Amino acid sequence: MIEGEYLQDILDQPHALENTLAGLGTSKSLQQLVDRLKDGKFHRVVLTGMGSSFHALHPLNLDLISHGFTALMVETSELVHYKNHFFTPKTLIIAVSQSGQSAEIVRLIEMNAKRSAVIAVTNTEESALAQYANAVLLTQSGREFSVSCKTYVTALMALKWLGDVLCERDLRYSGRELKHAAPAVAAYLADWNDYVGNLVSKLNDIRHLFLVGRGPSLAAVGTGALIVKEADHFHAEGMSSAAFRHGPLEMSGPETFVLVFSGDTRTRALNRRLVDDIQQQGGCAELLGEDASTECFRLGEHGAAVRPIVEILPVQMITLALAACAGREPGRFELATKVTTTE
Amino acid sequence: MIEGEYLQDILDQPHALENTLAGLGTSKSLQQLVDRLKDGKFHRVVLTGMGSSFHALHPLNLDLISHGFTALMVETSELVHYKNHFFTPKTLIIAVSQSGQSAEIVRLIEMNAKRSAVIAVTNTEESALAQYANAVLLTQSGREFSVSCKTYVTALMALKWLGDVLCERDLRYSGRELKHAAPAVAAYLADWNDYVGNLVSKLNDIRHLFLVGRGPSLAAVGTGALIVKEADHFHAEGMSSAAFRHGPLEMSGPETFVLVFSGDTRTRALNRRLVDDIQQQGGCAELLGEDASTECFRLGEHGAAVRPIVEILPVQMITLALAACAGREPGRFELATKVTTTE
Repeated sequence: MIEGEYLQDILDQPHALENTLAGLGTSKSLQQLVDRLKDGKFHRVVLTGMGSSFHALHPLNLDLISHGFTALMVETSELVHYKNHFFTPKTLIIAVSQSGQSAEIVRLIEMNAKRSAVIAVTNTEESALAQYANAVLLTQSGREFSVSCKTYVTALMALKWLGDVLCERDLRYSGRELKHAAPAVAAYLADWNDYVGNLVSKLNDIRHLFLVGRGPSLAAVGTGALIVKEADHFHAEGMSSAAFRHGPLEMSGPETFVLVFSGDTRTRALNRRLVDDIQQQGGCAELLGEDASTECFRLGEHGAAVRPIVEILPVQMITLALAACAGREPGRFELATKVTTTE
Repeated sequence: MIEGEYLQDILDQPHALENTLAGLGTSKSLQQLVDRLKDGKFHRVVLTGMGSSFHALHPLNLDLISHGFTALMVETSELVHYKNHFFTPKTLIIAVSQSGQSAEIVRLIEMNAKRSAVIAVTNTEESALAQYANAVLLTQSGREFSVSCKTYVTALMALKWLGDVLCERDLRYSGRELKHAAPAVAAYLADWNDYVGNLVSKLNDIRHLFLVGRGPSLAAVGTGALIVKEADHFHAEGMSSAAFRHGPLEMSGPETFVLVFSGDTRTRALNRRLVDDIQQQGGCAELLGEDASTECFRLGEHGAAVRPIVEILPVQMITLALAACAGREPGRFELATKVTTTE
């Protein structure tokens, strides 16, 4: 395969996670928002972003709902043009953007006009978003070449931390949980070269890829489908396992590979049954998770804080393998730009 | 092309819309929920469904948000397993299901256990969902062969009516607006054979289809991508125009066709610019809407009640054309089932 800067970013993820964890904390401004949230001053929490920054919000969204808050995810583009009634003092906005200055974020700053309080999660301290927000959590990924990898996993980490802050959990425990992330990622990446080699033979005759999962796995499912498209110009689509059953199942066959994320224990049995059903109908499907039969799809048992972070790694391997199949350098953009500055 | 029962369902849509409109009304049970909503008894309105029944909820979701309610869309599968904290008396659920008895609906009935009030929109009066719900709006589509078409457009109609009921608008005006739907659909479908013929030559060398739009067009964008996959075993993906810019744009090229829904006036200029940008980069993109250059993508100017209904029609033509390209009967299922009874 053709090695390049995207591969370097992938291998740099443990380092980015360590740096990010070291920098996480609380602030007086964040604590004030936590108090207002606890006192019922906010009627809803709107979680917003675009691309992988949007998909990264799934675990936090579920966490806040389970804690009793009315939380919802909205793409920033839809928020600013079609849901701007949410811009009131009764809304708490959590906005994720690695650059902190994409077209939609600039529009959000202008449209919201300080009505709703904003918590920013960004990789760029001096960005428009960081300057504007009422409170900021910084990821420490350094520069990223093109496709989101370091900034995505560190955003997941910062958002898990933020969930613990907003739900007023013991942050010493959060810190101990998140300490497992960097070593888990490093352990997986140690064998990256073998994984890519094995995947090249597995994926060589595949034309369509579906990534499906449930609950917190929707983060990796959505981000994974996005990075395959942008890194490889290869059509991958992400959706919930249940949505896949409601129609797209018809596309099963030898040219369509369905990677089913085992995920959270609550719905593992349903996800496993989907793999079985597709295989019995003559389609290609494999499980990604603790019981995966293929080594590069096998992940250890991880807690809820770390699982979403490691779940994306096999998809990163797929992006490398598909590029090798096509003789391309993965992640070198031809049309797209690192920061999307057009709405 | 091979004509079959799916085509008959498509051509029967004006009739289904007329029947549905004739049957729409209010009821005492529905009015009680409207009163509770107005009095602030519900803290959130959760709109839920699967597949095309889920996507059909976009226009109502935006309508309720613009009216000041906290409305959000959740796939039923995710609601029952990961967001069941929403099952409280402070939640109003609007559940759409043509059969009223898919696996997820059965689970919702069991998990909610009458905690949240439920308004059902269904095509099946005797279904588990209709029996269970606090209030029911029935669509009158008759039997549908496989791919959702009649049930989808009539669900859009019923949901527009429901929005007017919930927002306490004058229902005489709603009726007058919705009267335009059946004739508009009939006028478009009069030329279906020419459209399909023209699309066959346009789509013959295409391998990937993206349907993109914003706001209320997300209904047709999502449903369209779903029905192409199930009717044709062809990979189509739907997303917001903005999400397409954030990465998938990289897939633009001669084998990828991007159909951009012009949609609501608020974001038409942005959608048109996306078409121009893709074309300038050597990709294939066309506009669907009032200014479309291709006849089968051209829609008249319609009000907000009717536009989502007519927006799906060109995609139905695409499903017919792709089947003709492949020598298949469109919409004859090989693996999927009309009612998804497995979670």
